[in-house]
Amino acid sequence: MSVERPPYRDIPRRWTINIGELGEFGLIARLTQDLTQGPEVEVGPGDDAAVVRAPDGRVVATSDLLVEGRHFRRDWSGPYDIGRKAAAQNLADVVAMGARPTALLVGFGAPAETPVDWAMDLMRGLREECALVGASVVGGDIVRAPVITLAVTALGDLAGRRPLLRSGAVPGDLVAVRGRLGWAAAGLELLLAGLGGPPELIDAHRRPQPPYEAGAEAVRLGATALLDVSDGLVQDLGHIASASGVRIELDSSALPVPMPGPDGVRLALTGGDDHAFAGTFPARTVLPASWRIVGRVVEGAGLTVDGDLYGPGGWDHFR
Amino acid sequence: MSVERPPYRDIPRRWTINIGELGEFGLIARLTQDLTQGPEVEVGPGDDAAVVRAPDGRVVATSDLLVEGRHFRRDWSGPYDIGRKAAAQNLADVVAMGARPTALLVGFGAPAETPVDWAMDLMRGLREECALVGASVVGGDIVRAPVITLAVTALGDLAGRRPLLRSGAVPGDLVAVRGRLGWAAAGLELLLAGLGGPPELIDAHRRPQPPYEAGAEAVRLGATALLDVSDGLVQDLGHIASASGVRIELDSSALPVPMPGPDGVRLALTGGDDHAFAGTFPARTVLPASWRIVGRVVEGAGLTVDGDLYGPGGWDHFR
Repeated sequence: MSVERPPYRDIPRRWTINIGELGEFGLIARLTQDLTQGPEVEVGPGDDAAVVRAPDGRVVATSDLLVEGRHFRRDWSGPYDIGRKAAAQNLADVVAMGARPTALLVGFGAPAETPVDWAMDLMRGLREECALVGASVVGGDIVRAPVITLAVTALGDLAGRRPLLRSGAVPGDLVAVRGRLGWAAAGLELLLAGLGGPPELIDAHRRPQPPYEAGAEAVRLGATALLDVSDGLVQDLGHIASASGVRIELDSSALPVPMPGPDGVRLALTGGDDHAFAGTFPARTVLPASWRIVGRVVEGAGLTVDGDLYGPGGWDHFR
Repeated sequence: MSVERPPYRDIPRRWTINIGELGEFGLIARLTQDLTQGPEVEVGPGDDAAVVRAPDGRVVATSDLLVEGRHFRRDWSGPYDIGRKAAAQNLADVVAMGARPTALLVGFGAPAETPVDWAMDLMRGLREECALVGASVVGGDIVRAPVITLAVTALGDLAGRRPLLRSGAVPGDLVAVRGRLGWAAAGLELLLAGLGGPPELIDAHRRPQPPYEAGAEAVRLGATALLDVSDGLVQDLGHIASASGVRIELDSSALPVPMPGPDGVRLALTGGDDHAFAGTFPARTVLPASWRIVGRVVEGAGLTVDGDLYGPGGWDHFR
């Protein structure tokens, strides 16, 4: 007995249109329809440029480029998570200056055959991550590209505060971390090994959860330097050591780790993409429990882990 | 008689290193070594984010994504020209708001085999275009990408002025243009046809020359709306008509054209990428000779050329 097959000619080839069919201006209209503009936005999307309030008389600005296959894979991450991640890593950079994010500009490059729904979910992810910190998506650009490409710029306001730079650490300071270390890298290693769990590690790769309140908190606590951990703790703290002209000594037993054992320590030291915040604080600072003291600043140069000088490591986009 | 060939094994395969060999941090050091920071820059490259003065209490911000094969071809344009063009189109957007550009952030994506010298020339082009308006390259990002990808964000200051929007045109206004129309598009058509000249048209494709002084001038002259022509005059003025709720009537005989004849008019009406400035001005405005009156604003909707309603045209990135 043969089962009659459905008449394929009556079945639509697919149910969603792609962005090539919708066209640039149709896509812009769809992507901006659900945007709401916060009180800092004087001119939002739709003109030659946005106008965003900078009440402090200065603006903090940072920009990242994310490329499919390099920063995310569409078979491992959905568009919503990619949007959350792209926004998060830029918002974290603004927060790491001690500033409050106000606005995001998004350049979106995609093949013409990308489904419109994919782009809509991406925008929802960008929007919802912005909402966590009260920032608005105020503009951007849409172009055709061979792979999904995201260029995100975040703006922020310092509200009269001095920016928290990488160059302010002094010998005697404590080194402390707030947020997760090595979780995203663990998730990526699991995916590369063909494994699908534990889900909290996979999710950490797909979507970082920077503790955004850490920026204002570090300012209140008198931090001397701050950054967000994007390339790995040792590499990023190495930037503070170098910019401040000091040595940083880390104690591996003090690190928050994604799992017990040597892999956990390795991932906490070298894994990027969680966007924890790492900073230096005057020695007598009483840190709340959300911050973990992981080392101290001494005279010298470079970075040591348990007394051994640490060589180059972490993430280099070309190596 | 045979000419002895040189011993190939002693000839280096190539004389420059590529960015994969240099690595991300080495490349950042090389690309930022010649940057100078203007008085508006409080924190330049090298920290989590830049800090740029916004004395007006607001910041103008715009972002474009340029992708190899779509916005430029490496066999038609050198890196210096690509840098000039990428900066120019963003600086022109800031100027079209009536603002003064202060800073540029540059996301640079490239294959690992891209020569370091190519990237250095690109940065020189970005830097020199910025110098024309007194802006500084204050930050950015470098990543690996399958094709050359440039994400440029420009910031600017309004110096207390109201922004020049697309929505301010009123019936009775003059429509005027300052700058070249159709030159870049003519150059592109010549290249597509396999032709190498006239050189001034080819050069116009490679590197636009926006008349940046037009922004401040339009503000002084009391412009009611302003934009820079990036997608073609009819399409871009159509945005003013639509945002302002008016009709724009163009007189094709009044257009500055790149060449005599119907091709010249077609290119002036539809050719993008020259980044001329087009604006509307109150009827009694006495415009200097640098501005060409090309039409007027009337009640209604849409855009006419010599009385005929003009359909959709210009540049759509997905069509």
